Amino acid sequence: MTGQPLPGFRDFFPEDHSTLRSLFSAWREASRRSGFVEFEGPELEALELYTEKSGEEIIGQLYHFKDKGDREVALRPELTPTLARMVAARHRNYRKPIKWFSIPRLFRYERPQRGRHREHYQWNCDIVGEKGAAADAELIATLCLGLSLLGLGPKDVVVKVSDRGWWDLFLADQGVKEEKRAEVLRILDKLEGAPTEEWKKKLGALAEPIGNALDSKIALSEGLEQVRQAVGALGYADWCEVDLRIVRGLAYYTGIVFEVHDRAGKLRAVAGGGRYDHLLKKLGGEDLPATGFGMGDAVLSELLTEKKFLRAESTPPAIFVVAESAERNLALQIAGNLRRNGEAVDYDPGSGKWVKQLELAEARGARWALLVGREAAQGKLLVKELATRKQGEIAFRKSADGAISLEPGVGDWAKVVAS
Amino acid sequence: MTGQPLPGFRDFFPEDHSTLRSLFSAWREASRRSGFVEFEGPELEALELYTEKSGEEIIGQLYHFKDKGDREVALRPELTPTLARMVAARHRNYRKPIKWFSIPRLFRYERPQRGRHREHYQWNCDIVGEKGAAADAELIATLCLGLSLLGLGPKDVVVKVSDRGWWDLFLADQGVKEEKRAEVLRILDKLEGAPTEEWKKKLGALAEPIGNALDSKIALSEGLEQVRQAVGALGYADWCEVDLRIVRGLAYYTGIVFEVHDRAGKLRAVAGGGRYDHLLKKLGGEDLPATGFGMGDAVLSELLTEKKFLRAESTPPAIFVVAESAERNLALQIAGNLRRNGEAVDYDPGSGKWVKQLELAEARGARWALLVGREAAQGKLLVKELATRKQGEIAFRKSADGAISLEPGVGDWAKVVAS
Repeated sequence: MTGQPLPGFRDFFPEDHSTLRSLFSAWREASRRSGFVEFEGPELEALELYTEKSGEEIIGQLYHFKDKGDREVALRPELTPTLARMVAARHRNYRKPIKWFSIPRLFRYERPQRGRHREHYQWNCDIVGEKGAAADAELIATLCLGLSLLGLGPKDVVVKVSDRGWWDLFLADQGVKEEKRAEVLRILDKLEGAPTEEWKKKLGALAEPIGNALDSKIALSEGLEQVRQAVGALGYADWCEVDLRIVRGLAYYTGIVFEVHDRAGKLRAVAGGGRYDHLLKKLGGEDLPATGFGMGDAVLSELLTEKKFLRAESTPPAIFVVAESAERNLALQIAGNLRRNGEAVDYDPGSGKWVKQLELAEARGARWALLVGREAAQGKLLVKELATRKQGEIAFRKSADGAISLEPGVGDWAKVVAS
Repeated sequence: MTGQPLPGFRDFFPEDHSTLRSLFSAWREASRRSGFVEFEGPELEALELYTEKSGEEIIGQLYHFKDKGDREVALRPELTPTLARMVAARHRNYRKPIKWFSIPRLFRYERPQRGRHREHYQWNCDIVGEKGAAADAELIATLCLGLSLLGLGPKDVVVKVSDRGWWDLFLADQGVKEEKRAEVLRILDKLEGAPTEEWKKKLGALAEPIGNALDSKIALSEGLEQVRQAVGALGYADWCEVDLRIVRGLAYYTGIVFEVHDRAGKLRAVAGGGRYDHLLKKLGGEDLPATGFGMGDAVLSELLTEKKFLRAESTPPAIFVVAESAERNLALQIAGNLRRNGEAVDYDPGSGKWVKQLELAEARGARWALLVGREAAQGKLLVKELATRKQGEIAFRKSADGAISLEPGVGDWAKVVAS
């Protein structure tokens, strides 16, 4: 046993997991406030679910294998095909538009690098059954709300919005045939960082008109204008700008597309999404318009770390019960009672000495040590606030059914030690 | 695309996911109150991590394959080997005993049947670094607390406790050689449901002494007596009984073992666990005593469904904003403001008519419809409680920075419609 996870995979020790949970909390809270409901699918799906959507070339990036029932299966690289499958199976049960979110764990066999692992968590929000750009705006606003709950604002990130529909019309206008458009979009997709001379050469006669379009920072299409207005009304105008270089490589996007980047432009995209109106039908489901986004935990964590915004959602026990060995049974009774009353309570399950128990109480980060010592014979206990080392006395009483009540209750211990 | 997940896998539609979340909430809350901290590991691990623990025969039940880097990998069938790996890597950073919990998703290639799928979620709690039976008792109490938070009590379930250490001594006493003991334990493990004549025949001369031991409902070992006392002090005496038939098949258990069953005895085990003091060292880690349990979501859900205790943790939006088309922009501003203030707010992103928007508000289960109509010109809005159809008027005000305040706030709308 090497002690290490597989390359590209991550161990989440408690201190790592508490920061991960702070992301999940923000994602769930933004989803809840925005009226999305949570769903989840299997992590293993039939391989064809992915090849039907993305072609055979996706196989090179997948964890896939033949299971013991001779089925070609794959660990999900994304949630959208599962969403399409589930919507196809039961969409009649749900009033449109369907607003679903999920925080799936996703897998890709890629070279591990900064901000890119072989597994990650991804916040997904999708709206199915609404074709208007207001749905795209709703997604962008939800995404901004989620980022703001993590402390990020328009000075830290920018939502770059574009319109694949506009590109289709523009390229048709320029006489680029349908089968050639994907190639142009691929060049646009790699534009960031590419030397101007190089992409101009690649685009040939298209270089000038495309260059002019790219310089525009204002809405060029009806869809972009609707998004601008609705995102503005929802309160996120200063988070967004039009950037037509955003085309989101994948062939299936049909309308508004967007990516979130750090303002400094140092990291990979924090999130990306857009409208995929034909995908559900293509995957054998209903012909329903759809739009959605995904936001991974990895790049976001990098950005939050850099901004020093990354918070841990830590839950130390409120109370640590310290007991003399003769009072061990009473200590357990008190711990059990407090827990049933909703308090977070820990104690040393070993037979550690008094001072060792107190050390463990501090190591656990407990606010209070509840000391069950000789005073217990007189119905008394001591409470000690570990940070201030202030101490006070409380009383306890056992009722006939074994329940133990403390006088005063935990909420008033601060007064006890202050006096 | 079939519309169905792979055999043995589950889709969690929003209504399914909300019940799943109610399990997770109870598990997390019981863990928190009991001083366990959450961790998580990768879902894909090196195959040898599992064969080292359980032998080559485990391979038959695993999802395993060779990845593109020619590594033999497996989807985790359980969390313990990952825990062992992680503890080995960093245990010096943590004060003992380590109390960790997790809610991993686990995978097993088995014939799908009632209460057993090919993937499931499992609540895991482990205590590492404490050898006394008090740690086993702490786990049992945590497990009982979790079940009680779901509405279950000692009338619904029983924790059957046994001691593998006692069996080792007993069998040695009976002259059963070490290499033969596993075979006897395997017979004991299959005892439930087996005809008495059959197992008596299999056990031969051991049948009588074993039969006598099995009839005992009281503590037979020091460990069992310590568990009885500590679990009793923690408040769960009536949940537990000694049942020596519980041996937990797997060879690595060394002391106290336990299983949770429904009292009626109709279902598979709801949870199981015990002490595995030699496993961490065997897996190449430190020689630390350890004990833990796992509780899956599937059998538990069956039991809760049967008892009609299964609750959905549903989160309908509190407010659904309904707008006349001329007031659409104002409606979005109000929605954005309310969401930033922490309210769950939905609206129709389409251009639906007034009555269609109200229908959607009801379908979403919103408590309030906030009606943005002609009164808006006078700074007024109507609020409607959808369940009672009672209605009242509130005012709104826009400040210079675009923030919108409602008068009175959401918390007082009940008074507005009552008057």
